Amino acid sequence: MQVGILGAGQLARMLVLAGVPLGMRFRVFDRSADAPAGQVAPITVGDFDDLAALAAFARDVDVVTFDWENVPVASARAVARDARVLPSPRALEVAQDRLSEKRIFTRLDIPVAPHAAVDDFAGLERAVRRVGLPGILKTRRLGYDGKGQAVLRRPADLQRAWHALGGQPLLYEGVVDFDCEVSLVAVRSRRGEVACYPLTWNVHSHGILSVSRAPFLRPRLQAQAQRHVGRLLEHLRYVGVFCVEFFVAGGRLVANEMAPRVHNSGHWTIEGAETSQFENHLRAIAGLPLGSTRARGHSVMVNCIGRMPPAARLLALPGVHVHDYGKSARPGRKLGHLTYVGGSASARDRMAARLLGRGRG
Amino acid sequence: MQVGILGAGQLARMLVLAGVPLGMRFRVFDRSADAPAGQVAPITVGDFDDLAALAAFARDVDVVTFDWENVPVASARAVARDARVLPSPRALEVAQDRLSEKRIFTRLDIPVAPHAAVDDFAGLERAVRRVGLPGILKTRRLGYDGKGQAVLRRPADLQRAWHALGGQPLLYEGVVDFDCEVSLVAVRSRRGEVACYPLTWNVHSHGILSVSRAPFLRPRLQAQAQRHVGRLLEHLRYVGVFCVEFFVAGGRLVANEMAPRVHNSGHWTIEGAETSQFENHLRAIAGLPLGSTRARGHSVMVNCIGRMPPAARLLALPGVHVHDYGKSARPGRKLGHLTYVGGSASARDRMAARLLGRGRG
Repeated sequence: MQVGILGAGQLARMLVLAGVPLGMRFRVFDRSADAPAGQVAPITVGDFDDLAALAAFARDVDVVTFDWENVPVASARAVARDARVLPSPRALEVAQDRLSEKRIFTRLDIPVAPHAAVDDFAGLERAVRRVGLPGILKTRRLGYDGKGQAVLRRPADLQRAWHALGGQPLLYEGVVDFDCEVSLVAVRSRRGEVACYPLTWNVHSHGILSVSRAPFLRPRLQAQAQRHVGRLLEHLRYVGVFCVEFFVAGGRLVANEMAPRVHNSGHWTIEGAETSQFENHLRAIAGLPLGSTRARGHSVMVNCIGRMPPAARLLALPGVHVHDYGKSARPGRKLGHLTYVGGSASARDRMAARLLGRGRG
Repeated sequence: MQVGILGAGQLARMLVLAGVPLGMRFRVFDRSADAPAGQVAPITVGDFDDLAALAAFARDVDVVTFDWENVPVASARAVARDARVLPSPRALEVAQDRLSEKRIFTRLDIPVAPHAAVDDFAGLERAVRRVGLPGILKTRRLGYDGKGQAVLRRPADLQRAWHALGGQPLLYEGVVDFDCEVSLVAVRSRRGEVACYPLTWNVHSHGILSVSRAPFLRPRLQAQAQRHVGRLLEHLRYVGVFCVEFFVAGGRLVANEMAPRVHNSGHWTIEGAETSQFENHLRAIAGLPLGSTRARGHSVMVNCIGRMPPAARLLALPGVHVHDYGKSARPGRKLGHLTYVGGSASARDRMAARLLGRGRG
């Protein structure tokens, strides 16, 4: 089977590494010739709105999937005329707009933070009156890793936030007073089977995921998350890996956002689960049976941001695995990640502390 | 680091898949443009005795290693003028000749089957008189997977065997009356650290490895094998993964042959060990610390020979992993392998029985 991936970042790279053993062949499409997945698969360089280039790419493959959820929906729909596209352009469309996301969560009885759409300054004032302070003003589109966001604490912050983000569709959200953040990575096959990984406990730093630990052993929350995500997957008739990030607040889950793709908080599954999220995504879109999502132990994943620490120091730590995305260093850029799978949560947490020391080197 | 691999078969393919996460980049060299590793790394097509092509290849990389141990030694030595070559051409030279292999085993006090070099028919008669019947006449060079061998049971078999194999350097070996066959995969780093995987129990069929199970829990034999292989690694000042196949006969090990490379009997380490043989080979040749060789459970590996069973049937078995080498089917050809890691030897053996059913599907 020939698989095409739109976007050739680290997610595409890890998809290729997971799919080659299944006998799959890959092609990747990206704006940049030196994107990480271009080192392991033939790359087509083009713009994501170049429909002719996308059509030629799609005709060479059996199924098209995504490394990047912000591929224009019109492009995804055009590609769908030449190849099977999974997940569907509809799922992308929902996930590309924070307001549609919130509406679907709400419609499916999944708790979300209080929020209001903002289109102009008067709308921002109304939203703040309704939702209250503090809150976060976010762009509805193209935000990631904390980009396109402004925190509002006092009335005086409205002007500053509007100045930074105004002029595009926005969303104002109340701040959730959370105990911690978790995510559920799930996968749905073409035949509608669903499998969920254990909940992952995530810690962010400056808006970017810093550390993930799994399994997060709270059976009641696990069941709650699986019900929520199960409804979303059914509603979207979703195929592939899907992730929802939640706040844990007062013992219940509040949905924050969804990602219609493999997710950074699921990277621990490469070593830490029976079947990785990357392999399960490919199994799903290829119409193969899903693999076991069982955890092999207690995992930690630490992101390497801005610089990649020297491999020799990391690999000297027994049981540590290094994933270097082959990207050039740049402040704030995700360059790789480290994982460790321990026999106990405490062994895992001891190694996590060492990795946080060295990972930031 | 740029790594060049001479030979682009499934071993090179699995080396690339293991090395990309370490941030390594690869180039592979093969006679065939559609060799399995050419799907995951840029391939140079050329002959292994084309010194100019090999020199150009070597100048583009930092270290050169092997997928195929029968690269001409003269070529390996020529390449060593342009790049670091690991393991050394000397290790290849020993392993390419069954007689040198036997001499090194003997010199290092590692038991071997009774044997004699054979250069002409009179020599074969002398060898059979000395070693006895039954025995196996083997080519000294280029034999693998049971090729280049003839079994002699009766005096009348001498003429037939000579007719099949005569005219090249041969070796006549007594048949070892073994209880089972095992192998030890070990790795030595550039600094001389040595790590050994647990012994693997191998079953061959028609001269080709069929099933491997690990760990083979016989502490006395494990220690014996580690002493033997440790002496070999030191003697050869070897760097990288190395494998010795042994017969277990009367409670002791008799060395059969060595392979100066990652080995089919170590494929279970991808899922079944903390660090795979492929990653450890690359860590060794790159001068990185070695990774843990600890088994994660009880593993089985089943080779898919001649045809690759449908992935959907295999992946429906929980915990089964498929490795398809992307090769076209041909009788007797190794096309892929399946693995399973169980929590107990009995769970593993139950799955092994099912895989042997489906793997031969």
